[in-house]
Amino acid sequence: MLRKLLPLGLLLLAANASPQVLPASADPAVMTGFPPPPAKRVTRKTQVDAANLHWTLTHMRILLPSIAIRRGPQATEELPIGRSIDLPAFEDIDGTLVRPEEWLLRTHSDALLIMHDGKIIFEGYVADMDPAEPHTMQSMTKSFTGLLAGMLIDEGRIDPQKPISFYVPELAGSAWGKATVQQTLDMRAAVRYDEDIKNSNSDVRRYYGVAAGLFPPPEGYDGPLSIYELLERLPQDGAHGKGFIYKSVHPEAIAWVISRVTGQSPAKLISERIWQPLGMTADAYVTVDPAGIAMMGGGMSATARDLARFGEMLRQRGRHGPRQIVPARVTDRLFSASARTALAVPDGSWALPGYGYHDFWWLPPEGDIIEAHGGFGQHLHINRRARTVIVKFSSAPIGPEYDLAKRLDTLAFRKIDAAF
Amino acid sequence: MLRKLLPLGLLLLAANASPQVLPASADPAVMTGFPPPPAKRVTRKTQVDAANLHWTLTHMRILLPSIAIRRGPQATEELPIGRSIDLPAFEDIDGTLVRPEEWLLRTHSDALLIMHDGKIIFEGYVADMDPAEPHTMQSMTKSFTGLLAGMLIDEGRIDPQKPISFYVPELAGSAWGKATVQQTLDMRAAVRYDEDIKNSNSDVRRYYGVAAGLFPPPEGYDGPLSIYELLERLPQDGAHGKGFIYKSVHPEAIAWVISRVTGQSPAKLISERIWQPLGMTADAYVTVDPAGIAMMGGGMSATARDLARFGEMLRQRGRHGPRQIVPARVTDRLFSASARTALAVPDGSWALPGYGYHDFWWLPPEGDIIEAHGGFGQHLHINRRARTVIVKFSSAPIGPEYDLAKRLDTLAFRKIDAAF
Repeated sequence: MLRKLLPLGLLLLAANASPQVLPASADPAVMTGFPPPPAKRVTRKTQVDAANLHWTLTHMRILLPSIAIRRGPQATEELPIGRSIDLPAFEDIDGTLVRPEEWLLRTHSDALLIMHDGKIIFEGYVADMDPAEPHTMQSMTKSFTGLLAGMLIDEGRIDPQKPISFYVPELAGSAWGKATVQQTLDMRAAVRYDEDIKNSNSDVRRYYGVAAGLFPPPEGYDGPLSIYELLERLPQDGAHGKGFIYKSVHPEAIAWVISRVTGQSPAKLISERIWQPLGMTADAYVTVDPAGIAMMGGGMSATARDLARFGEMLRQRGRHGPRQIVPARVTDRLFSASARTALAVPDGSWALPGYGYHDFWWLPPEGDIIEAHGGFGQHLHINRRARTVIVKFSSAPIGPEYDLAKRLDTLAFRKIDAAF
Repeated sequence: MLRKLLPLGLLLLAANASPQVLPASADPAVMTGFPPPPAKRVTRKTQVDAANLHWTLTHMRILLPSIAIRRGPQATEELPIGRSIDLPAFEDIDGTLVRPEEWLLRTHSDALLIMHDGKIIFEGYVADMDPAEPHTMQSMTKSFTGLLAGMLIDEGRIDPQKPISFYVPELAGSAWGKATVQQTLDMRAAVRYDEDIKNSNSDVRRYYGVAAGLFPPPEGYDGPLSIYELLERLPQDGAHGKGFIYKSVHPEAIAWVISRVTGQSPAKLISERIWQPLGMTADAYVTVDPAGIAMMGGGMSATARDLARFGEMLRQRGRHGPRQIVPARVTDRLFSASARTALAVPDGSWALPGYGYHDFWWLPPEGDIIEAHGGFGQHLHINRRARTVIVKFSSAPIGPEYDLAKRLDTLAFRKIDAAF
């Protein structure tokens, strides 16, 4: 194994098309062997323990039931390879210089893929990661939910000014009884639901994880056992359309609208509208809740190459070769500076200040950039001006390290863009 | 929906390449809707209830964790279409005439695909089945396990005369401590383990289902929680190498040997050695146990077209176009009449008399034929003399109906062959 030959922190920078080997810190014994020794076994209960996180995030479907996002019968379209770059050093906000190896190690990186002008200029994975095996996207899933909604709005099949309950009457008595589709897409619908991921007693930790099927119900649990049951129980809390508060239940409500309007699972829609036309490398998948419903607030897994291909299509105003995959109206609205200004979110919502948030996408202050972010350090960064697309997968445990990782990743992306 | 327009029992026989619509009897409301109504929801506990069986067998990965058998980056190779046939009527053993619509309905058919001389001459699915979505294979999985073992034996990496415990020392104290690889492959290793699928108190129902992760552990369960733990606990029962008794734990023991020898999951081996070179339509998958180990006694799901393609390769002595996928030595041994005679099993082991069993394949009395069979009516029938390959998926509930279905299916395949 190459990893064993490399001192920690050393980064191979090859000039050819082979993916590079990123420095790894995860325990290589977790879930290896036939069978893995009991002490190194990952279960639904222990999946997010720090020692297990890397394996979990690279093998979600071995832990949880899932539904396929099929790539269809055609061959994979190879991504063009450009001249490879050296990763730059960059400054942290206090001026400290962060060298690239340090960045990759401290953010618990699993994969990094950088495209410029539609060509791969950097691609690296930790040694135990199979580039063809989907990695969890966590909340980057939300951005797919938002994009699907944007497409259906553009087609006139969803009216963004209608309340969610117009499409899903089951939610009439909940926070979404009066919240509009657009307020929900921008996380400005007011719902009594506490998404403090660090607090084990928060609603997100106590209910969402169980309702979505991620965790087994704890002893004496009397909460909802499916995502939609959870949504039905969440009451309104204040006035809709005011402040932004990040809550993973909003994309689940939007996914319900999408399925009700189309009669399809989002997994099937993403397959037909995005995965099949883009010539993806691999089937992606979404984990499902106990009712068999796709978890569209965070359940998707995909390969880095496929996310890069997806990002490149968005950078090209929704085009892939001769085909318009997503209407340019939908992508333009995301990249426009006016959206960012109109939908500014409080500083602290993301690791760096000045962001907006729209249709489940993060809008950085520079404009011309959109970002999807997911828990434990999953990122898709698309910059129209620099003509870059950056995908990063990581296994950063929630806590102070994760806050640092979010900041370093965001700063690194800006520095990479600055070269173009 | 086409099914709604068709009176039950009517079969569309189209002369073109579109799959035909088979008569359906399953409840179309099960697991439909977003979310499905609670009364129509399938859980791990209720998955094999008669009303749920059809949905379960067509959607295993939505209920259970799984590992992919990837088809790789290439395009699907289209199967050639031949002149379509009318399905024949045939006689039951008491001389009663069985019309084809009656056969398909009474055996709870989900899919039927017939190839002759490498071309599809019949292809039909019940209306709610997506031909590109894998269907469970149940014990047809065993035949893949046996084929992998046969290939590794041919390569000299496994010695069929060595005891299983030579490769897996963990099994030294179990039935497989002294049983050889070949005795295990032929289900002639003597293990105290009761595989009476109809008896809810049998070992297979009480332990194997829980250990393999199919069913949640019942209240007070103190049995094994992974397949290999179950194997370690099963003692020898009499002399090895004598009578044939069908037991699903044997392929699990062989799969353990395969993984120990290759350092790979069978899922990966099947992908690299079979799925990728054959240009399959879809990723297949295997469900996994709580330790993440593929259930090689019954966990695979695949599409009918991909199983037909696999069967056609075996019919062609392991060749697919210019490539030798499986050594001809391995396939010839399965099809040889001498193997059938030497490895004859008691009448009653299969629905019709005169069978042999070898390397987890069923060997019908006629010779030149091999069959893989799986619970609830999954079949792959390959006839070298008639140059046919038949795949059938069904959802026949275990019980007298299932015994009837096994017999009717076997008789139907013979009648279809008789035309060539």
